[in-house]
Amino acid sequence: MFVPSGVITITTDFGHQGPFVATMKGRMLTRLADARIIDVTHEVPVYWPAEAGFWLSRSYQYFPSGTVHVAVVDPGVGTSRDIIAVEADGHGFLAPDNGLLAPVVGRAASARIYRLDLASVRQRLQLPVPSATFHGRDIFAPVAAEIAAGHIAMQDLGPVTTDVVPAWVDEPSSTPDQVAGVIITIDHFGNLITNIDATLIERFSRPVVRTAGHDFPLRRTYGDVRPGDYLALINSFGVVELARAEQSAAEGLGLGRGAPVVVSSR
Amino acid sequence: MFVPSGVITITTDFGHQGPFVATMKGRMLTRLADARIIDVTHEVPVYWPAEAGFWLSRSYQYFPSGTVHVAVVDPGVGTSRDIIAVEADGHGFLAPDNGLLAPVVGRAASARIYRLDLASVRQRLQLPVPSATFHGRDIFAPVAAEIAAGHIAMQDLGPVTTDVVPAWVDEPSSTPDQVAGVIITIDHFGNLITNIDATLIERFSRPVVRTAGHDFPLRRTYGDVRPGDYLALINSFGVVELARAEQSAAEGLGLGRGAPVVVSSR
Amino acid sequence: MFVPSGVITITTDFGHQGPFVATMKGRMLTRLADARIIDVTHEVPVYWPAEAGFWLSRSYQYFPSGTVHVAVVDPGVGTSRDIIAVEADGHGFLAPDNGLLAPVVGRAASARIYRLDLASVRQRLQLPVPSATFHGRDIFAPVAAEIAAGHIAMQDLGPVTTDVVPAWVDEPSSTPDQVAGVIITIDHFGNLITNIDATLIERFSRPVVRTAGHDFPLRRTYGDVRPGDYLALINSFGVVELARAEQSAAEGLGLGRGAPVVVSSR
Repeated sequence: MFVPSGVITITTDFGHQGPFVATMKGRMLTRLADARIIDVTHEVPVYWPAEAGFWLSRSYQYFPSGTVHVAVVDPGVGTSRDIIAVEADGHGFLAPDNGLLAPVVGRAASARIYRLDLASVRQRLQLPVPSATFHGRDIFAPVAAEIAAGHIAMQDLGPVTTDVVPAWVDEPSSTPDQVAGVIITIDHFGNLITNIDATLIERFSRPVVRTAGHDFPLRRTYGDVRPGDYLALINSFGVVELARAEQSAAEGLGLGRGAPVVVSSR
Repeated sequence: MFVPSGVITITTDFGHQGPFVATMKGRMLTRLADARIIDVTHEVPVYWPAEAGFWLSRSYQYFPSGTVHVAVVDPGVGTSRDIIAVEADGHGFLAPDNGLLAPVVGRAASARIYRLDLASVRQRLQLPVPSATFHGRDIFAPVAAEIAAGHIAMQDLGPVTTDVVPAWVDEPSSTPDQVAGVIITIDHFGNLITNIDATLIERFSRPVVRTAGHDFPLRRTYGDVRPGDYLALINSFGVVELARAEQSAAEGLGLGRGAPVVVSSR
Repeated sequence: MFVPSGVITITTDFGHQGPFVATMKGRMLTRLADARIIDVTHEVPVYWPAEAGFWLSRSYQYFPSGTVHVAVVDPGVGTSRDIIAVEADGHGFLAPDNGLLAPVVGRAASARIYRLDLASVRQRLQLPVPSATFHGRDIFAPVAAEIAAGHIAMQDLGPVTTDVVPAWVDEPSSTPDQVAGVIITIDHFGNLITNIDATLIERFSRPVVRTAGHDFPLRRTYGDVRPGDYLALINSFGVVELARAEQSAAEGLGLGRGAPVVVSSR
């Protein structure tokens, strides 16, 4: 059950130039003066909802129960694309219906999806006419603030639905011998983070991670190898990661988002 | 009339390295423990007040009434340049007197400008001797916090003035046939944002936007054209913008800040 | 004496990609709902604790007394490296025991160092098993929040110690004729900031700053020379800085972190 805590997170591909994120926050504070707002990241690759959904699905549990998570990676803004809300494990989510929230729905213990009835919500919350190109400020921000304030319940946003746009990236595929996934994101250190959940490879007694023709042993932490050496590990968000101690695996291997990664048993 | 809301925004060209913005916030919280502080952007091109003023003039209305907006793009810090405060449409602004706030004064329904009497304000607020190179932390931050706290009124900052440094970028020029402006900023997506207000081109029945020898039709939103196609639109801040669907118009056209843009009727 | 104010600052080398800093904040708000959290910077050069320590030692005094400063530049995460806490001049600090906090201890009027007894603290604060690779989220964030909330005192974190990892960068060396230091960081404007404190060169009647074969006169502020000219000054954090008016000294001189700088009397 979702009980609002007054905390809102924001995830976008807006970068840090201009007042885009700031005006979202301004609209939030106008509706909920003591909203506590956390930036998740604004450096999602532009127009790529998959990464926003991946990170949200792996991080929402670290925020207080009752947090509203707003994610705006929205190349279809102003077209007929819908907005959906998800209630999952005591958290609320708002995003365009473009597959962004599929990883959240897929991983949550329980999830319910609502299709935002924009006309009804606009009337109820007295939202001004939105611009055609910035729904983050004109719709997502005020709606999130009103949810966080407890002024509108998740179930009042619109009808329950299951017919939503699917995920941008397939879940890893498993055979008895191996699990095949992809690099889904790269962090600031150049660590290559895959979408392969640790639970998928628990059954391998001696797992080895293969990508770009190289095999990497699974270790516990970066300091387990010498600076400059490569390793694989289960990272702090529960997925397989390829790293290079005190250096950038992304640069060293020349790999990027989407590159295939296979885990098998030695 | 300005009634402080406890909200402060910060706009600078400081980037995100080092503790420059953070120590401004530290000084603010020291003076007003429950200040709610929003970063507008710290990626204004260095030493270019024009962009800070443009964005502030287009975004202040999205923050709660009674917000104090601090803008520090200040190549003249420590010289004899003054500091001015502007009260406009229920918002307060603090910036160096270097033309930064001219767009705010120009667009506000009502605006009053005060020249900060630094000696008097320092004594009243018991400000320590400021450094020669960081007035953002030593003057702007504590003064903004004291205004936001209601401890000092805008009119107590110094005498009213109209004799301030003019804007860095001319307003667009209009003839019966066309409106000529410039690209004033570029967002993270590579959209080229001009200083041409939508109201200036309302009179054109079939507006066409010309820059760098190309003509762009005016559309409503990015999704109205195919990915990769160019378009012009009135953006969410009410100005003419040149864009490329799901790509960067700035890269595609090779244009940057200051490039001329003309809108005429077909 | 340290009396918590509810303010927490965060300094890391995590950059702005992904939910790394955000999940630290989420954990903090879960433990202290009204924590006021300030990002110092997340652009410390990766794996270089020296810069984090330099900036913290120069900036903590601008935050409210009773602030908890968390610094996570932590290449040894998950290995046997310890965590230390420092109480200095009414502020609290948490960082890996890797030399990061040495500049804070060195500059504070009074400082006491505690070695975190992780087993005891985990039990007392009911921390879940930490990941091997992200102690920022799993240990530093919740411990900082509990300190900021007044739920655990600095002296309850573990035993007092003086045997800690030394600083990464030597303090400047002084002879009667000169002071020799290094460039310790570069700001967004390309100003080259040294570790030479102003007090070390007060005795020189006509100080001249030499680096890369060039001599720079000591001025008061950037505007004291013409745009494009170089200068040295005592910056707003009390150290010698090499700058170029309205341009980047780092680019102009081709210098970076670690480059030697000597101040002598003309």
